Amino acid sequence: MSTPLRAIRKGSFCSSASSFRGVGVSMVQGASRGIGLEFVRQLLEREDKGHVVATCRNPNGATGLLELKRKFSERLNILHLDVTNESTIEASALSVRESYGSINLLINASGVLSLPNKLQPETTLNKVRKSSLLHAYEVNAVGPIMVIKHMWPLLKAREGTGDERDFAVVANLSARVGSIGDNRLGGWHSYRSSKTALNQLTKTISLEFARKKDPILCILLHPGTVDTDLSRPFQRNVPQKSCSPRSFLGSKHIDIDDNSDLLDRGSAIQWLAQYIVRM
Amino acid sequence: MSTPLRAIRKGSFCSSASSFRGVGVSMVQGASRGIGLEFVRQLLEREDKGHVVATCRNPNGATGLLELKRKFSERLNILHLDVTNESTIEASALSVRESYGSINLLINASGVLSLPNKLQPETTLNKVRKSSLLHAYEVNAVGPIMVIKHMWPLLKAREGTGDERDFAVVANLSARVGSIGDNRLGGWHSYRSSKTALNQLTKTISLEFARKKDPILCILLHPGTVDTDLSRPFQRNVPQKSCSPRSFLGSKHIDIDDNSDLLDRGSAIQWLAQYIVRM
Repeated sequence: MSTPLRAIRKGSFCSSASSFRGVGVSMVQGASRGIGLEFVRQLLEREDKGHVVATCRNPNGATGLLELKRKFSERLNILHLDVTNESTIEASALSVRESYGSINLLINASGVLSLPNKLQPETTLNKVRKSSLLHAYEVNAVGPIMVIKHMWPLLKAREGTGDERDFAVVANLSARVGSIGDNRLGGWHSYRSSKTALNQLTKTISLEFARKKDPILCILLHPGTVDTDLSRPFQRNVPQKSCSPRSFLGSKHIDIDDNSDLLDRGSAIQWLAQYIVRM
Repeated sequence: MSTPLRAIRKGSFCSSASSFRGVGVSMVQGASRGIGLEFVRQLLEREDKGHVVATCRNPNGATGLLELKRKFSERLNILHLDVTNESTIEASALSVRESYGSINLLINASGVLSLPNKLQPETTLNKVRKSSLLHAYEVNAVGPIMVIKHMWPLLKAREGTGDERDFAVVANLSARVGSIGDNRLGGWHSYRSSKTALNQLTKTISLEFARKKDPILCILLHPGTVDTDLSRPFQRNVPQKSCSPRSFLGSKHIDIDDNSDLLDRGSAIQWLAQYIVRM
């Protein structure tokens, strides 16, 4: 996962940091719970972070988002988006285009690790089912890529100023178990391989953006175990202590400092936090 | 892809090389054309290599296999197997169990890179379709894993002699474009990410076999560009010269020597060739 970060470091965003200030538009896909919801919350709690588009499968049941909507009614836009239903992705892209014309930041936070009667993290090859492999792949790898595909015109639509033009950022939530080199335990076939594929697809896309000189940077976040609905049933097997979504993103409103514990979870998170502060 | 090889080197097969001699049973899945067909041919051309089970989607139309069947009627068993249809995998496993009781070698050679009106190697994110991503994943990653799942009892069924017991081998055909670290060009999203996932799944499975002390070794082959129906439409963009399936496998009937050109394509191929010679 290091290459997208190398690409970031090569980017010219540092020289145009001042142009990140001002009102931006962020889209958090998979925002009803967990890390996605926390991203929305912290983006809204910074008054200068502009508009936030929060998407989820069931807006009417997204109590966390609805609570934020009551407090930040002008700045939060909740849209229906199911990564397994491409027409909802297209409809969201159209809605964002009509409302804002462009976006600065796209966070793909949706993901599935287990689903009753459909997907369970496999402990042995004997429990691997074709339907589980395909479902995890559809949600965790295909979904984020189709979102990026349809949001691509909006990510590159921001008016730049030549070499000083702004970069938009795409951040995909990956997982440490997606690393092949780091795979020491086996198991979790469906989830693991879907995140591995997401890593490859993210790199493939970032190479095209770089080749075309599109002002878009892609990063992969592998947050470690964060205390969310996704990971909660499996935390007892996690050797390292899990953290809350809020502490994962930094207690200072995504303004992450040099806390080594956070740095251990990947410099991408720190970099993203700094990007958001500047945005 | 180095870890499965490391696992191989740790294996005890070298100390029991003599027990590989004799009549074995090999299964080549995806055997009607290309590399799969060549594996079948060369296994049959060695008189001491025992029985070969060749599977494909359409046995009646597999002219190459039918030609071999006329020459090696006693030793070649052609079965119908479509990796996208699990019942055909189960039926093949049942047939092999009833006929032979166990197998020494399973080669997963099937794969899809392009399919008219369904899948084309993508040159840009704009051309990436959900259906293409899912189809490549189903054929190239899910399929081989489901074959291994159902053949697992037969791979470990061979009678061993404690520490000196034989190892069976699973060889999955991967591709260099499946490597994330080696991805410099982008493109080919569906094929590339499906092979990346296959690499991760193969490693995940090999870890379980090792943990359970099952006498099964998994290897991944990334053959470079071999002149087959799969690669032919895209060879003009290949910087390195493609080779024929026969030269890929070694001109000496899989008895690969120190030819540096062959070694460049990965020591896994050389190792597999030596395994087959000993089998």
